[in-house]
Amino acid sequence: MALSSKYYLEVPAASLDNNKGEIDRINSLLEDFTGIKRIDWPIDLIISSLPVIRSSNGQLTVTACRDGDRLSVISVESGDTRSFHFGIAIDLGTTVVAAELIDLKTGDTLSSEGEINAQVRYGEDLLTRLHFASQGGVNELKSALLDTINKLVDITCKSSGIPSNQISAASIAGNTSMTHLFLGLDPSSIRHEPYVPVVNHVPVLNASEVGLKILPYAPIFIFPSSGSFLGGDLISGVLASGLTKSEKISLLLDIGTNGEMVLGNKDWLLACAGAAGPALEGAVAECATRAKPGAIDRVVIDPTTLEPSFSTIDDKPAIGLCGSGLVDAIAQLYSVGLLDSTGRFVLEKHTTRWQKINHRIAYMLTEERTGNNLPPIYITEKDIQNVLRTKAAMVAALTVLLNSVGISIEEVQKVYTAGSFGIHLSPESSIAIGLYPKLPLNRFIQLGNGSLLGARRVLLDASNIDEAKRIADKITYLELNVHPTFMNLFRSAKYI
Amino acid sequence: MALSSKYYLEVPAASLDNNKGEIDRINSLLEDFTGIKRIDWPIDLIISSLPVIRSSNGQLTVTACRDGDRLSVISVESGDTRSFHFGIAIDLGTTVVAAELIDLKTGDTLSSEGEINAQVRYGEDLLTRLHFASQGGVNELKSALLDTINKLVDITCKSSGIPSNQISAASIAGNTSMTHLFLGLDPSSIRHEPYVPVVNHVPVLNASEVGLKILPYAPIFIFPSSGSFLGGDLISGVLASGLTKSEKISLLLDIGTNGEMVLGNKDWLLACAGAAGPALEGAVAECATRAKPGAIDRVVIDPTTLEPSFSTIDDKPAIGLCGSGLVDAIAQLYSVGLLDSTGRFVLEKHTTRWQKINHRIAYMLTEERTGNNLPPIYITEKDIQNVLRTKAAMVAALTVLLNSVGISIEEVQKVYTAGSFGIHLSPESSIAIGLYPKLPLNRFIQLGNGSLLGARRVLLDASNIDEAKRIADKITYLELNVHPTFMNLFRSAKYI
Repeated sequence: MALSSKYYLEVPAASLDNNKGEIDRINSLLEDFTGIKRIDWPIDLIISSLPVIRSSNGQLTVTACRDGDRLSVISVESGDTRSFHFGIAIDLGTTVVAAELIDLKTGDTLSSEGEINAQVRYGEDLLTRLHFASQGGVNELKSALLDTINKLVDITCKSSGIPSNQISAASIAGNTSMTHLFLGLDPSSIRHEPYVPVVNHVPVLNASEVGLKILPYAPIFIFPSSGSFLGGDLISGVLASGLTKSEKISLLLDIGTNGEMVLGNKDWLLACAGAAGPALEGAVAECATRAKPGAIDRVVIDPTTLEPSFSTIDDKPAIGLCGSGLVDAIAQLYSVGLLDSTGRFVLEKHTTRWQKINHRIAYMLTEERTGNNLPPIYITEKDIQNVLRTKAAMVAALTVLLNSVGISIEEVQKVYTAGSFGIHLSPESSIAIGLYPKLPLNRFIQLGNGSLLGARRVLLDASNIDEAKRIADKITYLELNVHPTFMNLFRSAKYI
Repeated sequence: MALSSKYYLEVPAASLDNNKGEIDRINSLLEDFTGIKRIDWPIDLIISSLPVIRSSNGQLTVTACRDGDRLSVISVESGDTRSFHFGIAIDLGTTVVAAELIDLKTGDTLSSEGEINAQVRYGEDLLTRLHFASQGGVNELKSALLDTINKLVDITCKSSGIPSNQISAASIAGNTSMTHLFLGLDPSSIRHEPYVPVVNHVPVLNASEVGLKILPYAPIFIFPSSGSFLGGDLISGVLASGLTKSEKISLLLDIGTNGEMVLGNKDWLLACAGAAGPALEGAVAECATRAKPGAIDRVVIDPTTLEPSFSTIDDKPAIGLCGSGLVDAIAQLYSVGLLDSTGRFVLEKHTTRWQKINHRIAYMLTEERTGNNLPPIYITEKDIQNVLRTKAAMVAALTVLLNSVGISIEEVQKVYTAGSFGIHLSPESSIAIGLYPKLPLNRFIQLGNGSLLGARRVLLDASNIDEAKRIADKITYLELNVHPTFMNLFRSAKYI
């Protein structure tokens, strides 16, 4: 059953023999449909619904949210409107907020959009924003995020031709800080020992309470987090992967701004997190860019000519190298012998692609292009070292996780890749440079945006709310920074 | 368990090993106390409580409302405040609104006050107000009633030295129209065929939703009604009487502005209602007044001298005759032979008390008192006829009720008297004139304000909410106006 439900009722006219209240007659029918005796209405909704109820000739569609032992009425419409039943799934990304408008009757995605989180004007990175929050900026950050979300509501509704007040449910996943800021809660405590959030499990709220411009009493489910480091976005990804439904051991690699990984099955869940992402995100490599039109996302280097060829997102003129392009480039450089296993260029191998830029040697993917504003795109040893550090962190983390439960990597039956990099990275290249574990390619499953996917699951089947809670309660966090072997593993994993 | 509960918690400090959210740590302890997993907080309360939580050294008192399978948090205070735990019971009378401030820990009544319903400025009687409501006056009537209630909150709090935001629960009973106006619902439909209220069973709301100036998230229980004619005040009275708890058949006579009676036991409940009250209310008898200081409430006539003596409420100078004084006077006039069984004066019997007032004979209770503003107080045959009509209606109604279930009056084991007249009427006099059934005096139990009493019961024991619902669902309404024998019974009962 979806997070909100629609019930078409034919309410018998009142008579001297049945002069139960107008609302009570509706409630009787709802009870017949659902078996639920406890039916709540906000008093304002009773008042505003009366004209609809009275002009409907007894033919009404009631939208309600079923929640445990009670049903909360959300709206009343005249006639049979069951085919207009929509919800929105939202991923509160630190950089990009993504939303999907979903037809709750058919499960179809009607519109899928992303918008830069308007909070970036208070800081590109999360730490800057958290500092601003701690200086009294919580409400400004909340407003910026809400503006972004409401803009997405607007865009997805317009592109689907659906009025926003037809959205009767929302499901939202984000990291712990984003979730706090969405709710107007100061996330400062998350960043200081003992790293305690204000709240992990947020009760189901309603749209008007949080300022979301959809149906005012629509239920808003917010994914729970676990402790401070495992956010609702990760819990949502775990839910989406289904790894807690199987006996088989699976691994979820969520590579976004933060790198997170979860190992487990239906009985146990072990997770760790770290700032793995930046090397892949575009903030680190000199010619890096976000995965947007024009970003180089695939690179192949001819082993004979050593000349590169590449594709860009949407086939737009190349503007930079996104994470997947960077990983491809490194894998290809290594494969054709232009890179050694320590991450150093093999300059003895001759190619016209070696050029000196800012006193350092770079491998040129594009030439200097005068006459337009496009810069040359290249890769340096420093860029490669950064990626290898990330790779080393991932490998070390995975080794710690596996050792903690005493299993070998071969026992991992499925590897779900998610997060803004997980979506684009080539499994082959990622395995080649050691970023992904060396397992048969058919064990890798690209989830895409796991956070959004889990949010969507809850919208379409509200029983996933309990599953999300179970996941958040069950997951064990492994703190890598205090782990005795992590640094050793990290150091020895810095090679391809 | 009271409608709101207080829990004293000692929340362990967060540590690296326990970095659950601040709210989640509180919820864990609440779950330990109550066994309830589902704990709801309004997001505003989380935000506003954080400074209290953080400055409390972990010692907190949480006030919450337990409701089915969930606990709704109402407030958070620093330290152990369990001894400050208050609720307010309110009777929404058409004329007088009454309130009792109750210590929910001890059950003590800290203050009990009544205030004229400020709606009277839109009409003394209900019908005038309902007409005003139907002309768009709902919000004005709601405000007037709310002003009266909030004034009572203020008065009872001041007289008890308790801040109003320490009141964490309210329980409210009123007739169907008053309940509607309290909620801002137009009660017009109640008065027109097929006599349908907007709502009988009102969900538990919170104080800020209805505009009650107590703790904003305090639960507000509003007694359900049954159909249009049996109001929440009557349901509350039935609850207070306890007649649904016994196998024995009992009768509840609720004599206020309307006369209502309920016959039944734990298995069945039969009720009827009619405008019985006005004759007793002060609007009908020429020298009538409400039961207030100076009202003559007890009358004795010396059988030898035929001279009256009387007492007044609070021993203040006599200003008029309230319902109980009127019933006493009629009973005494009949008893000493000054009145015959048809309700006519026996003028042949000489007394100086017979005087002509406005061309009609009256029996003078006081003399004309010149020199002060107090009018003479007397009783006329017309006053007596009015009371006898009320009495006839009561007798006919009771006969119809008894006949419907085939029992005799002697099988009625208890007679609970309630309502603004039920409080004051002398059972002896009421039996003497036939207003009350002829049963042994020890079967009569004065409930007082049954509506307020039932509201109080719910405050102190929230399981009575379900009992009130059961009563409202179980009670069967007998429509007297369409009953074939009622008018015959009425005509034959117009004698003493």
